[in-house]
Amino acid sequence: MTHGGNIYEIEKRTGIAKDSILDYSSNINPLGVPDGLKKIICDGIDDLTKYPDINYHELKDSIAQYYRLSVEDILVGNGAAQIIFDFINAVAPRNTLIVQPTFSEYERALNIGGKNIIHYFLREEDSFQLNVDNLLKYLAADKSIDMVIICNPNNPTGRLISKGEMMCIIDFCEENNIFLIIDEAFMDFADEMGIHTLMNECKKYKNLMVVRAFTKFYGIPGLRLGFGVTSNLDIKNRIELLSLPWNINTFASYFGRILLSEDKYVANSFKWLKNERVNFFNKLNEIKVLKVFSSETNFVLLKLLENNYTAKTLQANLLKRGILIRDCSSFKGLNEKYIRLAVKDGASNERLIKELKSIIKEKNTWINKC
Amino acid sequence: MTHGGNIYEIEKRTGIAKDSILDYSSNINPLGVPDGLKKIICDGIDDLTKYPDINYHELKDSIAQYYRLSVEDILVGNGAAQIIFDFINAVAPRNTLIVQPTFSEYERALNIGGKNIIHYFLREEDSFQLNVDNLLKYLAADKSIDMVIICNPNNPTGRLISKGEMMCIIDFCEENNIFLIIDEAFMDFADEMGIHTLMNECKKYKNLMVVRAFTKFYGIPGLRLGFGVTSNLDIKNRIELLSLPWNINTFASYFGRILLSEDKYVANSFKWLKNERVNFFNKLNEIKVLKVFSSETNFVLLKLLENNYTAKTLQANLLKRGILIRDCSSFKGLNEKYIRLAVKDGASNERLIKELKSIIKEKNTWINKC
Repeated sequence: MTHGGNIYEIEKRTGIAKDSILDYSSNINPLGVPDGLKKIICDGIDDLTKYPDINYHELKDSIAQYYRLSVEDILVGNGAAQIIFDFINAVAPRNTLIVQPTFSEYERALNIGGKNIIHYFLREEDSFQLNVDNLLKYLAADKSIDMVIICNPNNPTGRLISKGEMMCIIDFCEENNIFLIIDEAFMDFADEMGIHTLMNECKKYKNLMVVRAFTKFYGIPGLRLGFGVTSNLDIKNRIELLSLPWNINTFASYFGRILLSEDKYVANSFKWLKNERVNFFNKLNEIKVLKVFSSETNFVLLKLLENNYTAKTLQANLLKRGILIRDCSSFKGLNEKYIRLAVKDGASNERLIKELKSIIKEKNTWINKC
Repeated sequence: MTHGGNIYEIEKRTGIAKDSILDYSSNINPLGVPDGLKKIICDGIDDLTKYPDINYHELKDSIAQYYRLSVEDILVGNGAAQIIFDFINAVAPRNTLIVQPTFSEYERALNIGGKNIIHYFLREEDSFQLNVDNLLKYLAADKSIDMVIICNPNNPTGRLISKGEMMCIIDFCEENNIFLIIDEAFMDFADEMGIHTLMNECKKYKNLMVVRAFTKFYGIPGLRLGFGVTSNLDIKNRIELLSLPWNINTFASYFGRILLSEDKYVANSFKWLKNERVNFFNKLNEIKVLKVFSSETNFVLLKLLENNYTAKTLQANLLKRGILIRDCSSFKGLNEKYIRLAVKDGASNERLIKELKSIIKEKNTWINKC
């Protein structure tokens, strides 16, 4: 299994201390843990002596209030991954279409249950943007498909499908009795005004599950917290029957307490992202041996146009300089020429750009093109 | 689903503030969170911005070192419950014998997979002590049983099966190709010298899985951390394939760092338990309308001998006085006359005894017997 952010394995393998690694491989908000959450954790350590609320009422209430959802439509989980695993188990689909390249855990969850998978590939010539008409034609032609999984914005391509386009997919799925999972793990970064999320459509569409993570936007992958939205009571009950008791730890269960009061953290995050993204992407674009795919979120997919370099060799070279990037060759539908970079703070981005340019200069074959 | 410790539901239902409830329904060490862990959490808040090590090497190494196990035999999970759920999924037994009354999650985990269950009941006339010969005769007579689950010491009866007796069961299971799960969630309280645990037998027996929790002994149910020991590589690989990525949060993954240095906490815990258990059980024994079953761990099963009182009515009456006890009527093999009490600190135990006596005095029917 390959994922970004595995600085522990890197430390073990290379001997480079994990705390000294500048990690461009995991897509986490560089603003760090919100101050409100730090206070709640420090104040709440003695609460570890109590079991968490097995029903997580307080957390669900806060999520419902913040995103204007019905509390009864919310499921909370030990990371968004748990919601996805449980939803797949509860639906038990026969044939699932996954829009690829994408997050590998959908495929793993389906494989565990021995479910059949159809990989539907985005194309480089479309800049990895989904052509909705083509997808719907594909679905219309294969009546055996009873589940579709789409990550939006998509990891690792960074592309956003607009709400208008997604609604065509949702309508089609509802009419044709296809379950649709939309993983919006990175939506917070892309959708400042909340116009592209489909959470609020879950009330109307029984076959729709939207999955969200707090992990990335709030800089807390270590806390393990995600949620799902569905108004399908039958599926929701089945998921609750399936799931582990007390699946969320005490600190994660208190996250709702800060969610409603971290306006400043949210505003600062958008300010950082707006400034840094354009700046970083422009700088990357100046490096001619890199093809930068446009991204609406906090990471970017790149293709190495130079024959002498693969994602693996570039990763190894950058790692010697203390920087970890994501080699995307393990993503279905990509190959050894693709890498993914997170957007980080200005100083880190400068450092990465500098190191990239320096590596490229060292290679004679690259130098003339830069 | 009914469990002890649900002070959130109690608060919602009764309006009694959860922080004011003296909770005798959950079996947690009253010494609180170890100081070393508090420091690690406060110092480590910024580490939430990193994904936990997906393989949890550091944690597994510490567990292996502390309990003298092979690191490759250790599985870590989001609470002991996850280990149990995953082991059952990985083995996929046809017929599982559960020694009842016991923790309800074994049955739930089997029900989720649609697995057949045989309930083997401990008897009150044996003081709920397992008769190993009878169990082995039962297993010999029904060749369809391919998994056995035993909680040792058992929840809610508090009885310990000695290592010598357990070894007869293990040998029988190994010879007859029966998988055996031994849940030692409460073993730390019962086994100061480490002579009754079966963790160290896992190396020799391929069909054995021992499950442990840090939750109870270290006073941290809110952190979610348990582990399992098995040398069955095939099953271990299957569990790793099945399980969620990053299933343990950052703080829980750091628990190993204190495990090796909390000698004082451990010593104080045994000191507290030795003093308080005898004292508390003696006081409870003085109340003649209560039958106190002997217990080797940090909680005790009681039977209400008075017709006018059920576990439900006693629970309601004590709750008015701010004390929550465990009504055991939901346990298979028990009924509305059974309650379970945790052993807490001396002052709390005094208070509970006083309130129990006061309730009993109020009832004319009880008064003469006390």
